[in-house]
Amino acid sequence: MIPDALTQGQFDTVYNFLSLVIAAQLFTAIFLILALQRVLPRYRQALIIAAVVCGIAAYHYFRIFDSFKEAFVTEAVGGRGEYVQAAGASFNEGYRYVDWLLTVPLLLVELIAVLALAKAVQSALLWKLIPAATLMIVLGYPGEISTDDGTRLLWGVLSTIPFLYILYVLFVELTKSLDRQPPGVRNLISQLRILLLISWLVYPVAYALPLLGISGPDAWVLKQAGYSLADIAAKAVYGLIIYRLAKLKSYADDP
Amino acid sequence: MIPDALTQGQFDTVYNFLSLVIAAQLFTAIFLILALQRVLPRYRQALIIAAVVCGIAAYHYFRIFDSFKEAFVTEAVGGRGEYVQAAGASFNEGYRYVDWLLTVPLLLVELIAVLALAKAVQSALLWKLIPAATLMIVLGYPGEISTDDGTRLLWGVLSTIPFLYILYVLFVELTKSLDRQPPGVRNLISQLRILLLISWLVYPVAYALPLLGISGPDAWVLKQAGYSLADIAAKAVYGLIIYRLAKLKSYADDP
Amino acid sequence: MIPDALTQGQFDTVYNFLSLVIAAQLFTAIFLILALQRVLPRYRQALIIAAVVCGIAAYHYFRIFDSFKEAFVTEAVGGRGEYVQAAGASFNEGYRYVDWLLTVPLLLVELIAVLALAKAVQSALLWKLIPAATLMIVLGYPGEISTDDGTRLLWGVLSTIPFLYILYVLFVELTKSLDRQPPGVRNLISQLRILLLISWLVYPVAYALPLLGISGPDAWVLKQAGYSLADIAAKAVYGLIIYRLAKLKSYADDP
Amino acid sequence: MIPDALTQGQFDTVYNFLSLVIAAQLFTAIFLILALQRVLPRYRQALIIAAVVCGIAAYHYFRIFDSFKEAFVTEAVGGRGEYVQAAGASFNEGYRYVDWLLTVPLLLVELIAVLALAKAVQSALLWKLIPAATLMIVLGYPGEISTDDGTRLLWGVLSTIPFLYILYVLFVELTKSLDRQPPGVRNLISQLRILLLISWLVYPVAYALPLLGISGPDAWVLKQAGYSLADIAAKAVYGLIIYRLAKLKSYADDP
Amino acid sequence: MIPDALTQGQFDTVYNFLSLVIAAQLFTAIFLILALQRVLPRYRQALIIAAVVCGIAAYHYFRIFDSFKEAFVTEAVGGRGEYVQAAGASFNEGYRYVDWLLTVPLLLVELIAVLALAKAVQSALLWKLIPAATLMIVLGYPGEISTDDGTRLLWGVLSTIPFLYILYVLFVELTKSLDRQPPGVRNLISQLRILLLISWLVYPVAYALPLLGISGPDAWVLKQAGYSLADIAAKAVYGLIIYRLAKLKSYADDP
Ligand SMILES: CC1=C(/C=C/C(C)=C/C=C/C(C)=C/C=O)C(C)(C)CCC1
Ligand SMILES: CC1=C(/C=C/C(C)=C/C=C/C(C)=C/C=O)C(C)(C)CCC1
Ligand SMILES: CC1=C(/C=C/C(C)=C/C=C/C(C)=C/C=O)C(C)(C)CCC1
Ligand SMILES: CC1=C(/C=C/C(C)=C/C=C/C(C)=C/C=O)C(C)(C)CCC1
Ligand SMILES: CC1=C(/C=C/C(C)=C/C=C/C(C)=C/C=O)C(C)(C)CCC1
Ligand code: NA
Ligand code: NA
Ligand code: NA
Ligand code: NA
Ligand code: NA
Ligand code: NA
Ligand code: NA
Ligand code: NA
Ligand code: NA
Ligand code: NA
Repeated sequence: MIPDALTQGQFDTVYNFLSLVIAAQLFTAIFLILALQRVLPRYRQALIIAAVVCGIAAYHYFRIFDSFKEAFVTEAVGGRGEYVQAAGASFNEGYRYVDWLLTVPLLLVELIAVLALAKAVQSALLWKLIPAATLMIVLGYPGEISTDDGTRLLWGVLSTIPFLYILYVLFVELTKSLDRQPPGVRNLISQLRILLLISWLVYPVAYALPLLGISGPDAWVLKQAGYSLADIAAKAVYGLIIYRLAKLKSYADDP
Repeated sequence: MIPDALTQGQFDTVYNFLSLVIAAQLFTAIFLILALQRVLPRYRQALIIAAVVCGIAAYHYFRIFDSFKEAFVTEAVGGRGEYVQAAGASFNEGYRYVDWLLTVPLLLVELIAVLALAKAVQSALLWKLIPAATLMIVLGYPGEISTDDGTRLLWGVLSTIPFLYILYVLFVELTKSLDRQPPGVRNLISQLRILLLISWLVYPVAYALPLLGISGPDAWVLKQAGYSLADIAAKAVYGLIIYRLAKLKSYADDP
Repeated sequence: MIPDALTQGQFDTVYNFLSLVIAAQLFTAIFLILALQRVLPRYRQALIIAAVVCGIAAYHYFRIFDSFKEAFVTEAVGGRGEYVQAAGASFNEGYRYVDWLLTVPLLLVELIAVLALAKAVQSALLWKLIPAATLMIVLGYPGEISTDDGTRLLWGVLSTIPFLYILYVLFVELTKSLDRQPPGVRNLISQLRILLLISWLVYPVAYALPLLGISGPDAWVLKQAGYSLADIAAKAVYGLIIYRLAKLKSYADDP
Repeated sequence: MIPDALTQGQFDTVYNFLSLVIAAQLFTAIFLILALQRVLPRYRQALIIAAVVCGIAAYHYFRIFDSFKEAFVTEAVGGRGEYVQAAGASFNEGYRYVDWLLTVPLLLVELIAVLALAKAVQSALLWKLIPAATLMIVLGYPGEISTDDGTRLLWGVLSTIPFLYILYVLFVELTKSLDRQPPGVRNLISQLRILLLISWLVYPVAYALPLLGISGPDAWVLKQAGYSLADIAAKAVYGLIIYRLAKLKSYADDP
Repeated sequence: MIPDALTQGQFDTVYNFLSLVIAAQLFTAIFLILALQRVLPRYRQALIIAAVVCGIAAYHYFRIFDSFKEAFVTEAVGGRGEYVQAAGASFNEGYRYVDWLLTVPLLLVELIAVLALAKAVQSALLWKLIPAATLMIVLGYPGEISTDDGTRLLWGVLSTIPFLYILYVLFVELTKSLDRQPPGVRNLISQLRILLLISWLVYPVAYALPLLGISGPDAWVLKQAGYSLADIAAKAVYGLIIYRLAKLKSYADDP
């Protein structure tokens, strides 16, 4: 799936998207840490997790960025030529799955934490969401590294089951627990869930691309750009909305 | 636009300007973080954003600095010779647009945040300024990477529309909301807007240079120096004035 | 014991496990530091130690990761070939023992600290656990670096004596001191000890592999993966349970 | 002015002095940040600036150290031979002027800030000191990079005018404002001004060396050592005395 | 004194000891910073200095570690061969003296600070200890870099005079000031002084080795290991005992 060669334009596009994600995740993490004192203590756990998630993503993007720079090289003066795969180095796609394994469950914990529900409700939701999220990532991986379309399809379908279950819990079960939230908060939670839905859909779609016969350098560059934007939406923008929620609720609790 | 060769003097000038910007942005960010406790909580959001903006700029200047060092090389002993473009590496101009995409909207948020206006007024202003700022940067980019003068002009003009709109909002609309600010504050805000105007003008002017037929190593070195000084003015000096504003207002609110 | 060659799949597996441990330990450390204020002062010492343990582990995994990357190299384009041992570099297994020397005693201190027992009881337990833990690591080392099976067995058995003593202290002696803990806490401490037991067993089992004639690249890759997961369990997950304990006890002391 | 070759002894001397300055500045900055809470809020601004100054110096010395290591190389086994200028790299003297441009005005701000004078007096002093300091550095630079003795002399004399003006403001004008300071404080301020005078004199003296015909490797090594010690005195030791002043005054204000 | 060649076992031993010191010093520094709030303000200065000392040591060990890795190289596959001195790089022994110049006086300040004696007594002790410590290091250096046994002996003896004076001040003069300390504290201070005595003795002993005709790779490896353990004892363990003292005294002052 990794293209044999990239034009300078393609190389630079991926390069700049990866660097953008580093900056976005790293400084969202720093912002959230600095802003921690601005919400009530009961909402800080959610912000700390949001900061940790963005920090983990920044770490992985530093690695992906370096991996990309080592994996594609050119001999052309001023870099104005074709970039080909380097000898002795590969672009490591594995970082994304390692990242998801840690951050996807945390994103769900972050959401539940900011609602500050009753302990029992919170615990019940997490016992559904965390195992499902872990299962989703673990089941997707064998399909990702397989070169066989059938295998990819099989594991993709298996991984989709916990994915749908997560959406069910978030959009059906969770809704019942939102009665006691103030209306402005309920509104913002709806927006948050829609952001989650749209950004999370990018990952199975990118996974399906080879099955749809979409490949080649341009598709690959597009996929990297898509991952980058989805990651910013699903972690940094998501974390900032969690912060707004926490501020709204802090104000509602203690005007 | 990137020159084929630089003299040592030209190389060193760019080198030292880039390093100056790293130090200025990084330590302004650190200063603002350390000084956070010295203003009232309601003004801290503005200072946190100011620190984040300077931090993002420092990150990008670290990258630009490294990119510059890799992109221009010499064989001369003691570096006393001509610096030419290296094989396999390019000076990545893309970092600036990536930086602007993140920091230009934040600079406007920072300004609105420090005024601590009524929530509704604040929200209305941001709904105008943030989209306009994003649009301005996005519209400028296709012109920047084009080698065709007509294309450059077209996108430059398109990008100028939201630019003028931002200036209108800041200099006309915002003025109406400043009645309730104490006089010393109003004064400082005027200075801040003038600094903003002058430093921001550097970017479209630099953009227009090729259209005016100004090119070659000297013009390029001048452009890098101009960008460097404008970035220090528009982010670090600007952030320090925001800090002064926050201190003045903290004192006015709670003498 | 270090294999002469690895396939790309084996190389990538080890590579991604090592990177996973870096992220897990580093961000658990950061999480614990940020969450410090959320428990009562008397439990913070335990969390600080938990954070320091994860930090030390992250440091050593950064080193192990770099050591691994330098020690195995390939000439194949895109890294799609056999990875062989590099000239002039070795994979340094010594980092693990250095890490254990510092962190294993601290893991026991962390456990005792969170219980907030009477000073005298606490002190008596630590005077047993810390020397035993240090002895266990020091006695294991000569066996680890020996190429002779008899020597390995001898030191392994010697090292197992303090290991069993530690388990005795934790599962028998400590139990007596748990009467005054609230029931939810007692429950969690049981889980914690079981996690400790299972994760710690991985290390002597890995030590015994060569004695059982289990060797070759696949066994080595498995061992690295096993170490990685055991380290995450024994330090990061363990630290997070310590944090839950500290929160439970903070709530019990000051509802 | 940069020597063509250094003996190992000369190389090591410069190397160790530069590394000493890194450690001294970096850890003075860290010390000042950690000690911030130990003085009254009104004196923290001075300490924050002192920390920032030492941080900026540490940054520049990291760069100078790396620049030095790249600029002088040897082929001798164990480095026991002559170090000559490398191909493709130069020792960048520009870092010092960039550093001064930022730190010299800040050193004066730091001094005025710790006195906590009346706002108007403070403002009047800064409007004299900051422009003069900036002018002094900017006027010195053209002489520094010129190879012509006459040019060097001319700019050196011009730069000396604001230098003398700064000394006049500090030793004559400032004295008038010190009546209301407690006697122990007045004493310490005198010492601080003497430290400032002696350490600052090193820079024009080093500047004058070529005019006095003092050159060659030994003089150059001495100059680097002199700069290093002067920088430690003028920033780190100076910052620590500012800290003592702040503690004395905190105690006097609130015993 | 630096050996021409090391076996892999010798190389790895030094390598792992150096890495151990990095981890021990760095994380002791972090621990002390995180634990600062757990003692009364009047004891924090001592802990801040202890943290700074460990931080400075970590910085120097990072440098020593890198210097060692660059200075000894092998061509053997898997690093399983003889390590010889590299071309163009030397193992820089100078870092230790630079480190001592900064940290040895601070270790004495740290001890005096934690006792929280009357200002005048404290000041009198420091005016004796700091100059003596500085003199001891400065006088030792010419002997260290000399290749002549007579010179080494001479400077060694001169350096021993202030060393003995420091011991006199600590063990005789200081004792008089300990009457008013609570008994548990007096006990711990005795232990601290014994730790200081034993760990500090390592340095003159290592210095004397060449005079005693002890040399060669094994002695050198032993010396590096001895320095490493002495540095951990004299800075990290010492700092942790200072922390215990500070906690004991905080509790005694405000139970
Ligand atoms: C359903 C599905 C998948 C879902 C992946 C998701 C939903 C990933 C979410 C990642 C996030 C949110 C990252 C954070 O930024 C896989 C594993 C691609 C395999 C194919 C089927
Ligand atoms: C109008 C205009 C432009 C404006 C750019 C601006 C106004 C950039 C501001 C950047 C800042 C403030 C950076 C922070 O330091 C472009 C995109 C060059 C394209 C041409 C037309
Ligand atoms: C009994 C035994 C051993 C025990 C090792 C242990 C118990 C290590 C624990 C490490 C931990 C907890 C690391 C932290 O993550 C050795 C030394 C392998 C030698 C063989 C016998
Ligand atoms: C008068 C004079 C000069 C003064 C320089 C000074 C006074 C520099 C101070 C630097 C400091 C204080 C650095 C911080 O550590 C120059 C520019 C060499 C040019 C020649 C004349
Ligand atoms: C008496 C004497 C010496 C003493 C050195 C000492 C006492 C060093 C202490 C270092 C410490 C405490 C480092 C921190 O970890 C020298 C200079 C070797 C020279 C020979 C005579
Ligand atoms: Na590349
Ligand atoms: Na790879
Ligand atoms: Na270059
Ligand atoms: Na490029
Ligand atoms: Na490799
Ligand atoms: Na090795
Ligand atoms: Na060199
Ligand atoms: Na240069
Ligand atoms: Na080496
Ligand atoms: Na050297």
